[in-house]
Amino acid sequence: MNKARLEAFSDGVIAILITIMVLDLRSPPSADLSALGSVLPDLATYLLSFVFLGIYWNNHHHVLHATSRINGAVLWANLHLLFWLSLVPFATRWMSQTELGSVPTALYGCVLLLSAVAFAILVRTIVAAEAPESLLATAIGRDTKGKLSLVIYAVAIPLTFLNRWLAVALFALVSLIWLVPDRRIERLTTPGARS
Amino acid sequence: MNKARLEAFSDGVIAILITIMVLDLRSPPSADLSALGSVLPDLATYLLSFVFLGIYWNNHHHVLHATSRINGAVLWANLHLLFWLSLVPFATRWMSQTELGSVPTALYGCVLLLSAVAFAILVRTIVAAEAPESLLATAIGRDTKGKLSLVIYAVAIPLTFLNRWLAVALFALVSLIWLVPDRRIERLTTPGARS
Amino acid sequence: MNKARLEAFSDGVIAILITIMVLDLRSPPSADLSALGSVLPDLATYLLSFVFLGIYWNNHHHVLHATSRINGAVLWANLHLLFWLSLVPFATRWMSQTELGSVPTALYGCVLLLSAVAFAILVRTIVAAEAPESLLATAIGRDTKGKLSLVIYAVAIPLTFLNRWLAVALFALVSLIWLVPDRRIERLTTPGARS
Amino acid sequence: MNKARLEAFSDGVIAILITIMVLDLRSPPSADLSALGSVLPDLATYLLSFVFLGIYWNNHHHVLHATSRINGAVLWANLHLLFWLSLVPFATRWMSQTELGSVPTALYGCVLLLSAVAFAILVRTIVAAEAPESLLATAIGRDTKGKLSLVIYAVAIPLTFLNRWLAVALFALVSLIWLVPDRRIERLTTPGARS
Repeated sequence: MNKARLEAFSDGVIAILITIMVLDLRSPPSADLSALGSVLPDLATYLLSFVFLGIYWNNHHHVLHATSRINGAVLWANLHLLFWLSLVPFATRWMSQTELGSVPTALYGCVLLLSAVAFAILVRTIVAAEAPESLLATAIGRDTKGKLSLVIYAVAIPLTFLNRWLAVALFALVSLIWLVPDRRIERLTTPGARS
Repeated sequence: MNKARLEAFSDGVIAILITIMVLDLRSPPSADLSALGSVLPDLATYLLSFVFLGIYWNNHHHVLHATSRINGAVLWANLHLLFWLSLVPFATRWMSQTELGSVPTALYGCVLLLSAVAFAILVRTIVAAEAPESLLATAIGRDTKGKLSLVIYAVAIPLTFLNRWLAVALFALVSLIWLVPDRRIERLTTPGARS
Repeated sequence: MNKARLEAFSDGVIAILITIMVLDLRSPPSADLSALGSVLPDLATYLLSFVFLGIYWNNHHHVLHATSRINGAVLWANLHLLFWLSLVPFATRWMSQTELGSVPTALYGCVLLLSAVAFAILVRTIVAAEAPESLLATAIGRDTKGKLSLVIYAVAIPLTFLNRWLAVALFALVSLIWLVPDRRIERLTTPGARS
Repeated sequence: MNKARLEAFSDGVIAILITIMVLDLRSPPSADLSALGSVLPDLATYLLSFVFLGIYWNNHHHVLHATSRINGAVLWANLHLLFWLSLVPFATRWMSQTELGSVPTALYGCVLLLSAVAFAILVRTIVAAEAPESLLATAIGRDTKGKLSLVIYAVAIPLTFLNRWLAVALFALVSLIWLVPDRRIERLTTPGARS
């Protein structure tokens, strides 16, 4: 079974998700600067979700790059991840329209958390399909970043009912952690790469 | 004629279909939990269609992987399949908006049935283009799962006028049957695969 | 310069065009059969445009398959074709919403005609970039089908003001002509293919 | 790290952006020619944005084609470019709905300017990842066109408050400059190509 179509299909779905969110960006109600100001929160939320999906594409790229073979279980683990990611535009729109209401923000956090869980399941399914001493297993190692993300999301979700701004800040923090690309895999798969 | 673009185009169309359905998910009317509850049926219907399209992508992947050559008739059989799949978001939206009305649910079933028929035609068109003793023909065999799906869909459609929940349960049952990946093809095309 | 990305980008655009038209399919106003009947003309128009775009993907596939090299002019000729194709959903929606009004139907015909002209320009640009005795030049030959399509479209457009049904029938006729895949190219590029 | 998925993902995102703008094209309010006339400005704005995005795809294609290796920084520079490009449909819609209001037109200019800046950053990031005497560094050279575009955009944005038509004409002028494909790269990467 070849991984090329799995990559192509995932690229397609993530590319669509990351772009259809602009269809949900409402035009400012009039043509002046204050009207633009009124949609700035929407733009900020869009940026947050854009970066989140961009990180998933990036990590998906890294993990699949280090993968040598896949099986049927990997296909389903991948579809499972895509399902949770596909709810990001829905959760973003609701959170945006209610101006960071507590329940919508908590739902947004749940979608982020479940996406992270689905990604962890995907990685473990791939590692199980590979040989035990595989490149990917070595590269992932103890997966500190992945576990830390799960903890921060799990903390942020109940926080939405106390202080929603703090919760959103934690969501953004996880993104910042991941904006540093996964050097572990890059180092192992690019022998002799500069910096 | 090469199959790479056929795969790429089909991946693109299915990836778009599976994601644009989130554009039809309406935001809950207010920011509280009960409002989220009111869109749960929509989310459940979305999940049903997501899994349905995911299965088609999966099976399409398996069949094309075992294919060695295609011709013009295969291109059209593939477009025919994509046409019926493309009606899934339309049928999902109507069924969802009418809260499982009988006629919309029956229409949804018809779209599922005709997609399954189109897939069967595609497989037969590919087998006809291949040599008689081809890998695919052997792998498909008697195609029990495919025939069973057609029968269940054909039974479920009239059932929508008696008990629409039973009909929807039958639609979900077919998905469950297919969630087990098509080991027949996987086994034959991956010599020495573990598990 | 490689043709792989040209094919991938064109596949992407056509795949999106062919699928976003379903977003314009309005749900029937109620949950009964007569409501479904009221959207049947929309569905028929959707089918017409789906087949039209499918034919362009198909012919694009055939022409690029027989192409060995491309240059900057080919990239622009291709974008020019994609521009006219991208207006198909817009023209389809207007024609559909006005229930085949004369002007909308004429506009639809103009989009079809200009797409056909753009395709002819693309083919000629590719042939000019190839060597004079190239496979593609031989395969295209006198391009009877292409010229016939242009004539039928040019006749059908003014007809929309006399009898719009006849005009739409002519649009469908052109599609029927092309549904027979382009055997000229297939024969030349698949040595020893059966039937 | 391989550049194939970077190209595929960027192709996907740009293909979607260039096509979803048609979803924002409103149908003319009635079925006669004057109604079509009323949406002509929308169509003109659509064409402007279509050409703008087409140029970015084209230049992206050329730059990546001349690239031999990428790293994590390139992935992020690419996502940064895609973010600004993704705001094109949003800015187009607002500018179109307000019939070229000053603030919306200035915002449109800012999105064009920031996309151009992001593209320049992407090219520099790639050049830094390549060897100093790389093909791309030679091909880009002093990048007169790129610098000229930035200057014209920077001039056009304040102009929107004096004469918005002149500003839009300057936006179109930049596109015209780029419509001539980047012969510098084409010449270097296609040894012996005919004109």
